[in-house]
Amino acid sequence: MSYTLGELAERLGAELHGDADCRIERVATLHNAVPGSISFLSNRRYQGFLASTGASAVILSAEFLSDCAVHALVTENPYLAYARAADLLNPPPAFEAGVHDTAWVSAKAQVHPQAWIGPQASVGPGTTIGARVYLGPGCVVEAGVQIGDDSRLVANVTLCRGVRLGRRVLLHPGVVIGGDGFGIANDDGVWVKVPQLGGAEIGDDVEIGANTTIDRGALEDTVIENGVKLDNLIQIGHNVHIGEHTAIAACVAVGGSARIGKRCTIGGAASIAGHLEIADDVHLTATSAVPNSIKQPGVYSSGMPIQENRTWRKNVIRMRHLDDLARRINRIESRFRKDDEE
Amino acid sequence: MSYTLGELAERLGAELHGDADCRIERVATLHNAVPGSISFLSNRRYQGFLASTGASAVILSAEFLSDCAVHALVTENPYLAYARAADLLNPPPAFEAGVHDTAWVSAKAQVHPQAWIGPQASVGPGTTIGARVYLGPGCVVEAGVQIGDDSRLVANVTLCRGVRLGRRVLLHPGVVIGGDGFGIANDDGVWVKVPQLGGAEIGDDVEIGANTTIDRGALEDTVIENGVKLDNLIQIGHNVHIGEHTAIAACVAVGGSARIGKRCTIGGAASIAGHLEIADDVHLTATSAVPNSIKQPGVYSSGMPIQENRTWRKNVIRMRHLDDLARRINRIESRFRKDDEE
Amino acid sequence: MSYTLGELAERLGAELHGDADCRIERVATLHNAVPGSISFLSNRRYQGFLASTGASAVILSAEFLSDCAVHALVTENPYLAYARAADLLNPPPAFEAGVHDTAWVSAKAQVHPQAWIGPQASVGPGTTIGARVYLGPGCVVEAGVQIGDDSRLVANVTLCRGVRLGRRVLLHPGVVIGGDGFGIANDDGVWVKVPQLGGAEIGDDVEIGANTTIDRGALEDTVIENGVKLDNLIQIGHNVHIGEHTAIAACVAVGGSARIGKRCTIGGAASIAGHLEIADDVHLTATSAVPNSIKQPGVYSSGMPIQENRTWRKNVIRMRHLDDLARRINRIESRFRKDDEE
Repeated sequence: MSYTLGELAERLGAELHGDADCRIERVATLHNAVPGSISFLSNRRYQGFLASTGASAVILSAEFLSDCAVHALVTENPYLAYARAADLLNPPPAFEAGVHDTAWVSAKAQVHPQAWIGPQASVGPGTTIGARVYLGPGCVVEAGVQIGDDSRLVANVTLCRGVRLGRRVLLHPGVVIGGDGFGIANDDGVWVKVPQLGGAEIGDDVEIGANTTIDRGALEDTVIENGVKLDNLIQIGHNVHIGEHTAIAACVAVGGSARIGKRCTIGGAASIAGHLEIADDVHLTATSAVPNSIKQPGVYSSGMPIQENRTWRKNVIRMRHLDDLARRINRIESRFRKDDEE
Repeated sequence: MSYTLGELAERLGAELHGDADCRIERVATLHNAVPGSISFLSNRRYQGFLASTGASAVILSAEFLSDCAVHALVTENPYLAYARAADLLNPPPAFEAGVHDTAWVSAKAQVHPQAWIGPQASVGPGTTIGARVYLGPGCVVEAGVQIGDDSRLVANVTLCRGVRLGRRVLLHPGVVIGGDGFGIANDDGVWVKVPQLGGAEIGDDVEIGANTTIDRGALEDTVIENGVKLDNLIQIGHNVHIGEHTAIAACVAVGGSARIGKRCTIGGAASIAGHLEIADDVHLTATSAVPNSIKQPGVYSSGMPIQENRTWRKNVIRMRHLDDLARRINRIESRFRKDDEE
Repeated sequence: MSYTLGELAERLGAELHGDADCRIERVATLHNAVPGSISFLSNRRYQGFLASTGASAVILSAEFLSDCAVHALVTENPYLAYARAADLLNPPPAFEAGVHDTAWVSAKAQVHPQAWIGPQASVGPGTTIGARVYLGPGCVVEAGVQIGDDSRLVANVTLCRGVRLGRRVLLHPGVVIGGDGFGIANDDGVWVKVPQLGGAEIGDDVEIGANTTIDRGALEDTVIENGVKLDNLIQIGHNVHIGEHTAIAACVAVGGSARIGKRCTIGGAASIAGHLEIADDVHLTATSAVPNSIKQPGVYSSGMPIQENRTWRKNVIRMRHLDDLARRINRIESRFRKDDEE
């Protein structure tokens, strides 16, 4: 797939500076680009490469235009325009429709004739699989699942009974949706399983990273709204509700019945307790631990960055006695106050 | 499946207040219940729904009976009684016995005639699969594995060579048991693999969540005792031993050769170092980091909850110099002592 | 497989103390060994078992020789010698070459005649699978993948399009390599996917634990160099580069474009931000959080170990006001300075 720079400018809504007929065949980083490539500058730290890039053209914001030695597409959000250009130049691989010889599809499943069921896949009864769905090798779709049009399950994905996916959902390998939530009741020291009877509903345009797990609800549904993006190895507990266009980085744990707002961003390795609410437009930096609800939009953080081990050890000992330390300061201050009164 | 309220009262050992003939067909939350449902109150925060619930009956403790506008089952542990009611009203889905056309079962495997081997499953030689075992789609059972009666492997589970499961074990999708532990020896800068020759033994009534991994032992076995409940995305290192009826929430890391007692509860995203012992009846709150043995039962915690980012940044800087701060307090106090002596 | 003690001494380069003809059939721990076993002592805490071990011989360092009641092999690195002995006595299980009846192999794949493609596996077009490769049950190999000689994919592993593995790579169940990285660009509140066009290259002698995920690069490749050892449930973001012979314990999150040096060791549950560099020979203890580059070799740490819950609660409150506390100390000190000046 290739475009002229003029065609790209038009499709991206960018301002063309240079040769409209220049042919663009691929995207590349500034420092590794060869002629025929279009590159982008969205992070000031790579500005130095502008002078020497081998790219035929660069997508950038107006402030960097004068530094650019090659053709340019000027736009306010170069990373977004780059994403669109990369998509135009690299359309997702085409696939045939049909059912692979080694796949198993229940006679009671409804598979759209334009869908593809890949090798070693398994599709249970009562499922509905939409148009242009790609069900990759080794995927397991249990009974009663619904998969919306244009969704793609890359490989070895598991959708448990009754899970519902919207349209254009992208699930990476190893994703599990609709496993039982962690519901246990204690009977005098012995745990009794609480049946997990709810479902899991995934909106349109949701992307979920490799080996991420999303539990089904206990009684009602776990809900992931439209446009949510989840990275790899994330845990979403039962009855969690995640609002539209929230993005969560890898290795985050979200406890059961947590309700996360719209347009939030959550950094890697954060952990969110169950049974709380996080408002819309909350941003959590990496490693944040959230024990209680967050009512106001804003940026929140916790965690302790590394130090040289010897220093950390000394500090940790103090941390374990911080309350004592604070009380000692109180006593010193009260002594001053006494001195002042005398 | 349906029961009269009188039948349920008897089976749950609960005290009936209301119409014994009222027919109950399903469980539901207090606020979403419709007639024919039984609901429960185990968390005081939902007390307000008692007055307006659409449920035909509610399971609750005696203290809330007077607030309840509908029939009631009174019991000391409403959540436990609810779990039992939910199980009665929602028996696990029945399945046929046999081997699916697309499954592969070694001629040297012993599969009980009442077991089910699902689509795309793979069962190696020397395995023994008990009565009423459900081996779901895509499960891999390597050579020499034993699976006890009434166990259920939902889908895409992997049991490596020689793993032994007890009875009524429930494994959610993506679980891996018996992968090699992380054993490496250093040869002048180059890592040499230490063969992992032990096994993994899982007791009766154990439940393990999606994508959780349990390594085989290095020389002896990794052991998960009866009644242990593990949530999703947990790592259990080689030679770990977990005592009966311990429950571990999601995303917990347990280092190799750790020995965890009976009836412990471990909160989400906790991490437990290797080669230590945790006594019986220890409770760790979420995000706890355990570097050393815990000898006494009790509740333990660590971790730092979020703050507004600007405040956190200031505090973190101080934390990095906490030992200096403490020394400064020491100096101030010693100055006071000098003043007092003068 | 069995060896005489003399043969083992020669192969391990160890000094023989005792009967060269003693026949050794297996390895065992000191306290559970029976005759015919060789054991080892590498951790002083097990020294007490030397006197009573049932082993026929023990691998140990010279300092413990006088305490050893049985034959001995003396070496400077007993754990390494043990690893080699265990490997000699327990060669990896042999396997036949060929393609299992239930596997699917594209007609356009090149599979070495000495390779094994196991049950329910799936091998896409354009792949190259080397000599003596073992592709276990349920593995998915997408189009264009290359797998070097003597590599072993245990089961249910997924290699996405174009991934390249070196020789003697060992991948445990549930590993996913080459899933899309987490690349998203924001368009006025809506996330737009950034196509992930790079690859993933895994060097020789790399071992990767169960359910670990390694993303493909965004534009260039994610690279894991020779001899790297990764434990279970680790996340490696897009464009990460890990240097030779680095070892990472379980549940570590590595953010995109991080560059980790050679011979590093990273403890369990650590988290490393994206777009930073970690020098060679850096050692991070468990639960370390790394927000910025580490330029100097050394040992680094962060995190807060557990305390009794009541104490921790008090300390946490103080931690949230640590900056205030520090300012109060400043004021006290400045008051002293004033007093001194007066």
